Parts: sequence; C-alpha cells; structure tokens
Amino acid sequence: MQVGMIGLGRMGANMVRRLMRAGHECVVYDVNSANVDALAGEGASGAASLQDLVAKLSKPAAVWMMLPAAITDQTLAALSDLLAPGDVIIDGGNSNYQDDIDRAARLSDKGLDYIDVGTSGGVWGLERGYCLMIGGPDEAVERLDPIFRSLAPGDGSPQAESLRTSELGYLHCGPSGSGHFVKMVHNGIEYGMMAAYAEGLNLLKAANTGKQARSVDAETSPLQHPQYYQFDIDVGEVAEVWRHGSVVSSWLLDLLAQSLKQDPSLEGFSGRVSDSGEGRWMLKAGIDTGVPLPVLSSALFQRFSSQGHERYSNQVLSALRAAFGGHAEKKTGEKH
Amino acid sequence: MQVGMIGLGRMGANMVRRLMRAGHECVVYDVNSANVDALAGEGASGAASLQDLVAKLSKPAAVWMMLPAAITDQTLAALSDLLAPGDVIIDGGNSNYQDDIDRAARLSDKGLDYIDVGTSGGVWGLERGYCLMIGGPDEAVERLDPIFRSLAPGDGSPQAESLRTSELGYLHCGPSGSGHFVKMVHNGIEYGMMAAYAEGLNLLKAANTGKQARSVDAETSPLQHPQYYQFDIDVGEVAEVWRHGSVVSSWLLDLLAQSLKQDPSLEGFSGRVSDSGEGRWMLKAGIDTGVPLPVLSSALFQRFSSQGHERYSNQVLSALRAAFGGHAEKKTGEKH
Amino acid sequence: MQVGMIGLGRMGANMVRRLMRAGHECVVYDVNSANVDALAGEGASGAASLQDLVAKLSKPAAVWMMLPAAITDQTLAALSDLLAPGDVIIDGGNSNYQDDIDRAARLSDKGLDYIDVGTSGGVWGLERGYCLMIGGPDEAVERLDPIFRSLAPGDGSPQAESLRTSELGYLHCGPSGSGHFVKMVHNGIEYGMMAAYAEGLNLLKAANTGKQARSVDAETSPLQHPQYYQFDIDVGEVAEVWRHGSVVSSWLLDLLAQSLKQDPSLEGFSGRVSDSGEGRWMLKAGIDTGVPLPVLSSALFQRFSSQGHERYSNQVLSALRAAFGGHAEKKTGEKH
Amino acid sequence: MQVGMIGLGRMGANMVRRLMRAGHECVVYDVNSANVDALAGEGASGAASLQDLVAKLSKPAAVWMMLPAAITDQTLAALSDLLAPGDVIIDGGNSNYQDDIDRAARLSDKGLDYIDVGTSGGVWGLERGYCLMIGGPDEAVERLDPIFRSLAPGDGSPQAESLRTSELGYLHCGPSGSGHFVKMVHNGIEYGMMAAYAEGLNLLKAANTGKQARSVDAETSPLQHPQYYQFDIDVGEVAEVWRHGSVVSSWLLDLLAQSLKQDPSLEGFSGRVSDSGEGRWMLKAGIDTGVPLPVLSSALFQRFSSQGHERYSNQVLSALRAAFGGHAEKKTGEKH
Repeated sequence: MQVGMIGLGRMGANMVRRLMRAGHECVVYDVNSANVDALAGEGASGAASLQDLVAKLSKPAAVWMMLPAAITDQTLAALSDLLAPGDVIIDGGNSNYQDDIDRAARLSDKGLDYIDVGTSGGVWGLERGYCLMIGGPDEAVERLDPIFRSLAPGDGSPQAESLRTSELGYLHCGPSGSGHFVKMVHNGIEYGMMAAYAEGLNLLKAANTGKQARSVDAETSPLQHPQYYQFDIDVGEVAEVWRHGSVVSSWLLDLLAQSLKQDPSLEGFSGRVSDSGEGRWMLKAGIDTGVPLPVLSSALFQRFSSQGHERYSNQVLSALRAAFGGHAEKKTGEKH
Repeated sequence: MQVGMIGLGRMGANMVRRLMRAGHECVVYDVNSANVDALAGEGASGAASLQDLVAKLSKPAAVWMMLPAAITDQTLAALSDLLAPGDVIIDGGNSNYQDDIDRAARLSDKGLDYIDVGTSGGVWGLERGYCLMIGGPDEAVERLDPIFRSLAPGDGSPQAESLRTSELGYLHCGPSGSGHFVKMVHNGIEYGMMAAYAEGLNLLKAANTGKQARSVDAETSPLQHPQYYQFDIDVGEVAEVWRHGSVVSSWLLDLLAQSLKQDPSLEGFSGRVSDSGEGRWMLKAGIDTGVPLPVLSSALFQRFSSQGHERYSNQVLSALRAAFGGHAEKKTGEKH
Repeated sequence: MQVGMIGLGRMGANMVRRLMRAGHECVVYDVNSANVDALAGEGASGAASLQDLVAKLSKPAAVWMMLPAAITDQTLAALSDLLAPGDVIIDGGNSNYQDDIDRAARLSDKGLDYIDVGTSGGVWGLERGYCLMIGGPDEAVERLDPIFRSLAPGDGSPQAESLRTSELGYLHCGPSGSGHFVKMVHNGIEYGMMAAYAEGLNLLKAANTGKQARSVDAETSPLQHPQYYQFDIDVGEVAEVWRHGSVVSSWLLDLLAQSLKQDPSLEGFSGRVSDSGEGRWMLKAGIDTGVPLPVLSSALFQRFSSQGHERYSNQVLSALRAAFGGHAEKKTGEKH
Repeated sequence: MQVGMIGLGRMGANMVRRLMRAGHECVVYDVNSANVDALAGEGASGAASLQDLVAKLSKPAAVWMMLPAAITDQTLAALSDLLAPGDVIIDGGNSNYQDDIDRAARLSDKGLDYIDVGTSGGVWGLERGYCLMIGGPDEAVERLDPIFRSLAPGDGSPQAESLRTSELGYLHCGPSGSGHFVKMVHNGIEYGMMAAYAEGLNLLKAANTGKQARSVDAETSPLQHPQYYQFDIDVGEVAEVWRHGSVVSSWLLDLLAQSLKQDPSLEGFSGRVSDSGEGRWMLKAGIDTGVPLPVLSSALFQRFSSQGHERYSNQVLSALRAAFGGHAEKKTGEKH
C-alpha cells in the first residue's frame, strides 16, 4: 500500500527502504532535500514540501512521521491542517506517551486518526526488521496492517500467516499512547539490562585489585583478603563465552562482545552516558502508579552521575566529614 | 576420554548424558543408587562408592563433582584421600570462588590438580549445551579440553575447529577460582536482568491504575492525572513482541514469554523469591574492591524483602510517622 | 497583627493558638463549625463562612489556608473572588510547588498576592514552634513578618532581635513556589533519614540470626559464619544511647527512642507505610533536573513495596526462576 | 580509678583529658613520645614503652587502646603477653566486630578480659562527651563503669544518678563484639543520613536549572517545564532554618549549617569521599543476615563512584549505546 514518510534520518530512511523492498509505495519528505533525492534515486516518490507530500497521497492518506521529538509537535500541527477526515498520522519517533494521548484527542476533533508506534531496532532494523509497539484506534491500526507487517522482522517461515502478530514482531497494544507507553517501558528495561552488564564487567575488571598497591591511611578502607583478588580476566572473552548457552545471553550481549573485540579497553569512550528521555518518563510513571523501580532508577542515576550531576552532593559529604571527624579529602587521582 | 561424575541430580545426570552422546566414557556415582542405576542403564559405568569410582578410573584420573554446595567440602576431602598425584578434581557446582582458591592450595600440596567450572544452562543444558567458565592450572585444563568441548554448546558448523573456545561456549578464565568468580558475576548480572524485566512488567500491569477507585485521605498520595493510566496491557503479548527485533530480546525473555503464555496472571506464584548465594558473594566482592553495584544490590534486596526481611524496618517507619505527625497506618489490604 | 485562618484541623488550630499567645488577632473559619466554636472559646473571632471571614478582616486582608491538598484549589478560587487587590493569601499546607507557581500567576492578574509556606513541626509545633519555608513577593512577605516570627520557634534570648530570620526558624526562600519547593526537599530528606534509621534498627534486630535454625536446601542461601550473629540487642536502649553525644543524634531519633520505650517490639504496627506526595514530587524534580537521588528513591520505593506494589514483580521473578532452573518457590512463612 | 591509654592521637589524647578532668588517673603511651610528653605536662603519668605502661598500672590493670585499625592487632598481641589474668584490655578504636569476637576468645584462654567500645563523638567529644557502645563480659564492664561514665556526655542534672546508663550516653550492648557491632550500625546510619542531606542540598542547588541554556540534540533529554526551575536558593540559609523546629534537625545538620556559613559554594572540596570500613562491614552483615539495606548501599556506592570506580561501567554503557543506536558520547564538560 501507499504511505508518506516525513523525516528521512537514519531511522526514517531505512524504514522507507524496508517498505519499498516489500513492494509498498513511499512518498517521502525531509527538510534536507538531499535526503529526499537519495531515496527518490532508490525508487521513492520525492516531495518538495508537506503540501506536496499530502497532494501526492491518495485518500485516505497515511503519513508516518519519523522526527526528533523537538519538532514533532510543530510538524503535526502543520500536517493536520493539510489532511482531511479519515486520514491517519503515525508518530514512529520517541514521543512521550502522554503527549500522544493529548494529540489523539485534538486530532480526533478534526476527524483524523492518530497512531503512535514505538519502534525498536536502531541501526540494525533495515536488515533485522523493526519491533513495533502500536497504540491507536482499532480500525486505523487494522488498515495499516500491511505496513506494520512489512516493517516488522516477521518469521520467514511458510506458516507465518498463521502466527499472531506479536510472533512476527508487531503488536497493537491498545488505544492511543499505549504504543509509546510500551516502548517507554522497553527502553527502561534496556537501561536496567545495560547497567547489569556494565556492573558485572566492572567487577570482572576489578578482579585484580589485590595486585595493586594500596595506600595505608585512615582515609582508605583496607582490602582484607588481597589473595582473593588476583585475577586478570579477559572481559571480552567472557562476554563472548556467555553468548553461548548461558542464562544471560541476549542481543545486547552480542553487541557488547563485538564492541569488546574491537577495543577491549574501551578507552575510546570517556564514560559520559547520555539519556534520551524514556527512562525519565518511565520513572515518573512508576512514581505516579506507586510501582517501585529500584533497578531503573539506579541505572538512570548512574547516567546522571556520569554527566557530572552528583558533584555538589559529594562536596556536601566531604564538608560533613571534615566537620565532625576532621577528615581531609584525598586528592583526586589517588586510586584508593 | 574417560571421566568420573559424582552427583547425579538434574544437572549431573544430564551432563553425563551429553558426554556419552559425544562418545566419552563416564563412571558415575551418587549417594542415591537409583540415580546410578538409571545412568548405568543408559550406558554409563556405575560405581557403588567413591572408592569404587576411583578404582574404575584409569590414571591420571579426572573426577567431576556436581554436588550441592553444602556437601562439596566433605566429598572433596574423602576424594582427595583416594586419588593420587597427577589426578584432577573438577568442581562444577556453585561453590564460592574463595573456597576454590583455598582448596586448590590444599590439594596442590598433595599433587592433585583442582579445576573450578562455573556451569550455566540449567534444565536446558542437555540439548542446548552448557556454558562453561573454567578456572585452574593450564596443563590440567588443557588435558580436559575434549570434555569441556563436548559439554559446551559448540557451533555445529564445519569451521568449528578454527574458532576460539569462547565462541564454542567454554573459556579458561584464569587460575583456580576464576571460573566460579566469572560464574558468580554471571549470576549477578542475571539477577539484574531479571529484576529489570520484572520492574518493567510490573509497570505495564499498573498501566490501568487510573481506572481504579482510590481512597481520598491524607494517607493516600493522589494520582494527579488518571487519564494517563487507562491502559489494559496484555503483558504476555508484549513479552512476545519484544522477542522479535527489539533491543531487549534475550534468552530470559524467551522463557518469560513462554511462562506468561501458560499463565498470564502468574497467580500460581506467591512472589517469595529465593536467592542461592552467588548474588550475595558478588555484592561482597564489589564491597571489597570498591565497585559500585547498585543494580545488583537492588535486585538482591528486593528478594530479601520478598522473603519478609523488611518488616521491622517498615514498622520503625510507621512508628516514626505516628510520633511526629500523628499518622495512623492504613490497614493492610487497602490498596492505595 | 490580624490574620484570617481557614482550616482548623490539628495544624491550623494549633497555629491559631500560637498566634494568639503572641498577641495576634485571629479570625477563624472551618467547614466544621465545632472547630470554629472551640477556638472562639479560646479568644479567636469565629466566622460562619468564607464571606463572613473576609468581611471581618480589615484591609489589606491576610488569609492563611491550612487545608488538605485536595480542597485547597476550590477554596482558593472562592476566596480570590471575595478578596480585593492588595490582599494576600497564604497557603501553609502541603501543596505541590508547581501549583503555587501557577496560582501566583493567576492571582497576580487579580492584584492579589500569594505566599506559599512550607510548615514543619507536626503535632509538636504548638510548643516547639513551626519551621517556616516561605515563597512569595518581597513586599507581601515583609508585611507578614510579625506572623511568621510568632509562629517560628524563635530564640528566646534577648539578642533574638539581632539574629537572621533563619536563626529564628523562618526563611523567605524566594519567589512563589520556593517555600513549598524547600519544604518538599525537607520532606524528601526526612524520608531518607527515616529509612536510614529503619535499616539500621532492622540490622540490630537481625544480629541474632545465627541463633535461629535455618533450612538446608538449594533454595536457602546458607549463613556462613553463624558465630558472628549471636547478639540479642536491645534496640530501644541503643536508640536512647545514640541520643547522647553520637553523630546520629537528631530530633527523629528522640522520637524513635520514645516510641521504642513504649513498645520495643513495634508489634502495634503492621509495617504498611504511606507516603503523602512530597517524596514523589521531589523525585520527579530530580528527574527533571538530572540530579541523582538514590537514597530518596530507595526510601520511597520501600514504602511502595510496603503498600503491596511489588507483588507482580516478584511473581515474574519466581516464574523466571522456575523456567530456567526448575526452582520451586518456598512457601510464604518459611523464614529463610 | 586508674586506666592506661595507648594511642594518643586526636581521639585518645582528648579522652585522657576528659578522664583526668573527672579525677581519674591516666598512664599514657604512644609511639610518638612528643604526644606522651604533652599529656604528661597536663598531669598524666607518661610511659616510655608498653612494658613501662603495664608496670605502672596497679592490678587488676585496665588498658585502653585507641589505635588505627591497622596496628591494633600487633599491639594487642604484645600487650597480652605483658598482662596477667584478671587484667582487661579495651579496644576503643574502629575494629571490625568480627575481629573482636575472635580476639575475645583468644584472650579468654589467657585469663584476660576483652572489651570493645564503639566510640562516637569525633573531634567534639572532649567537650560534648563520647557516646559509648560497649561489648564484653558483664563483670569486666561493670568494673570499668566509672571510666565509661566519665567519658560519656552524662546528664548534668542532680538526678543523673537515677538514670539508666543509656540516658547518660553509654550502654553495655552485650558480649564481646556487640559494642563495635552497634557502632558499625551507627556509622552506617550516619552514611545514610549524610547522603540524604547531600541529595537534598544538591536538588536545592539545581532549582535554577531552568535558567540555564541547554543543548538541543538527540543526546540531551529536554527540560519539559523550565518555568518550574527558576529558583536561586541560598542553601546555607535553608540548612540554618531547618535547624529550628523542623523534622530534619540533627547534630549533623548543625555542622552542615556551620560549614555552609563558612563556604556556601563548598568549592574548597573536590567531592572525593572516602569511606573508612564500617559502611562496608555493615553492608556485608546485611548480606549475611538477609536484611535489605538499600539506603546504606546507595550511600556507600556513591562514595565508591566519587573515588572513580564507576568509570569502566560507564564506558561499557557508552560502548553499548554506540553499538545499538549509533549514539556518540557528548564531550565531558558539556553540562547537559
């Protein structure tokens, strides 16, 4: 079927490619016309503007937005003025699900359908397929099934027809907002899993602590049994072996083993870890609903700390230690 | 090659089966003679006692112990009296790696080699293969390579010969203790991953909180925006869809989707979660080496709480709230 | 000076009493007329309605609201229709500081001043004085200084006049919202302190764990060194001794020692711990600003768990343990 | 009564002074003879060696050690060879309570009593008195009561005689080890309280985040409502006001307010926070007994992180983010 795509960055462009491979017709637009030209060269129908894109779509139109969160709302507003009742807008980006709920209500007043699609797969989706978590009205979601089915990984087997869509990698989760809600939870779990691996590997790397010289002073907690910390462990090899038959095997571990093979020291990274919003939203949802999320919050706070935000907190601790016990800070750089 | 196996529980018996399938000769012993008979019926050579087992092994002997932690030490003592210099003992159970280091030193005085093998794979290992994390002296580990290779998942392809052992699912991690150290970290990561999924699913289930009636009193924090918590999400279907192309796909998620398919409510479980030691040991290792492990500790403490150990702590909190603010406890059973 | 008080619950009534003791004139109103009569009998001027209260106040009027959060907004709306430009409304309850910012903007359009006052002191404030954290426009806060000064603990010494207001127990923290912002942080710290004591006392109580029988099975992590856990510690006596010269002495500890003296077992409490909103708001503010709050979140999540909200999470963990390792749950009630 | 004191550092010297003020006779020794001379000049009886010290004590002798943990064991060994059955050794330093239990057993074989005393009060103890948590055999503890009573803060009132010792600031907690066990828990609570204040102050300082410019890119989570983060809060003034009538008033807060008065920015501190062992031991005790300690562990891990130990963990996270999403790290120094 036919679909319009707005936003031809890494994600959007590859989704268009995957759709065209499956035989769908794509009308594409991006503020950067070079991106439009590139896909036009691969068989898409290029549009010069939002108006042009809408004009090129047959009715009822389906427009998929794959945009940075920051410009989604303004594009949505412009687009909703161009579309007609019965058309559908899909937001496949990383919107806050609460915005989806508000948007769906607004668009519904104009007779437009709104579908939110949480999209997982990253830079690997073109070949591997995208895992799609979909929220929106039944009828509209049903109508777009061919698009979702083509974007999703699928099954590849003859009996794919008889499988539930979840088994093919896409799921209609519920009304508007539910797709991004489930994607938000997905990302929160991802934070937790990543942190679990990171902690484990950090301890593997510290398994030789007993070999290191350690200052002997009142500000340094002594290592009681250095004989138990004498291992030089090849962290990359451990990541690799865990991929084969262990309980912690996962796609993230596959990637991790690959990264460690290229650079076991990881010294190409400074350790400043960004976060892109979903973890924060999930934690707020946990707060609202009273659901304890200690793992997610630990993972999120570790990122905040890596960004430098715990500095004043630590200065307060040092000030207190000086005040009640006369403790002087050790100089930064002293390892223990 | 030939190997003796002591301990024919779920794990040990299946490992014998996998070894025999690969053409190895197994001499087997268990305190429960029915277990010995069963495997003897499948082609193993049954032993009536430790002495008998040792007598049936050609020199240098290799004896693999697959025992509950509680009886490993006494069996090891008995065994070491029966063996001769050059023989090797393998502990494939869940021993504390610090015990391994102590044991290896003791056995080395008798001329015996000691190898610790962290074994992952659970009830699935017979078919899927076991991921093996191995610690011990180079020569002894080298000599047992055929055994490790057969237990591990392997690759199945013609080029398996050219792969590193980590790519086949077994790894010599370092000297004695390092195998169980790596297995300990593996299990700690497993705790964190499990908790990450559990938190996420708990929030998915709470996505309909806005539909529930909520008491209005000073002891209940109000839900500010109930319109954002109106989703009835099929948790099992979400677990299934995530298996296909998402970032959080993993073997644990495969199992989880399967469990939820059988019983989406999970009401067959009370939620009392045991822990079997490795998480505790890993946290202690983090304390010794100064490595922060917030995710592991969160996961471990959640289990402690599920076992009832936070009760007094909560009573203290209630007592304090009554003392400074005159707050009375809500009755247990009131949901919010 | 003269002040109107709306809301004569435990907090409001005692604040009126403290103001009258200091010579201020109080006009009081409550939906429950018995509360009005009681204070009228102690010298306050009773009002029969909001209108009556406003009518009895000389201009410019100052009206203090001491209400449950749930009815603050509607009272504020009614009140703002009755007041005239130049009048001031004080919210001394536990409002979300973000609501204050929105309210102040709305009221400012009508020429009304809005002051938010975070009030700490609980049931002890009448005698001990209330610690006041004040947000609002300079002039209005300045004008009400005599009221704040009388409510605050003060200093009692002749040189009180020369002290900063913070040394007397009240502080103008900044523009509207800042008072409740600081109070919110105050409460969050309180959560953390309470949890710190609760954890410590819980461990004191567990110091005799080595004396208890412990199941020996694969689902129970063994206690390695029972000889180190043989203490029967009198928790109440410890709380008392810490009050005298230790680093952890505090007002909360004073209360705790008192509670434990009355009932060392705390069996009068079930351990279901409510939370009243401020901790949640503070955690959200930390999320917004990227400030890591691991202690606060731990304290808050412990309360969520005590309310029963971690059940499904634990069921997921049990389901996973059964799936990969064949582990059966221990029955609830088995202690270890 | 008479007591020997070994170790005349900040703590030991001041304890001698406090004892002499109360009329006790002190024989003092330190490896640094200048410390001995100083106290001799104030009325103590100086000793030139351990032998000399023991020789100067009448029988049964009481020797108090106030030494760094690192040299306590060797001094104890030397001392125990010089003493006679019926003598008592007191360890007032920060020993691990498990060492106490082992030591007491060893010394008991020689007929010596061993008392462990957890001592809180820091540099303030001389004037304020020391809070003493005492473990050891009843008779020996009883005999030293006059010493404990003089070191403790006491009550200062005429009815002090009728008070329980806990009300005077010292407590016999139980058998050997229980004193340092209670002190260990005390310090763990202290970690948690300190972290609670530090987090709160960190958030107060971040209350103006909405005023700061913020990068707009996919690696920066946007601040949704900057209008709610416009406060410039005087953190020192807030600490001061909380001292008066609030729920979070404490001795630590008194010190904190003082430190912030001297240097509100705390820029004299780098934020590298040491830990001295007790927090680690307490966390291990929680692990052994199954007591969840999320607040303590959060506080301890924050210190570990401040010491640089989370770096590799963060590098792993960055490597993973690059691998699955093509995310590049922001440069260190970019604030958001």
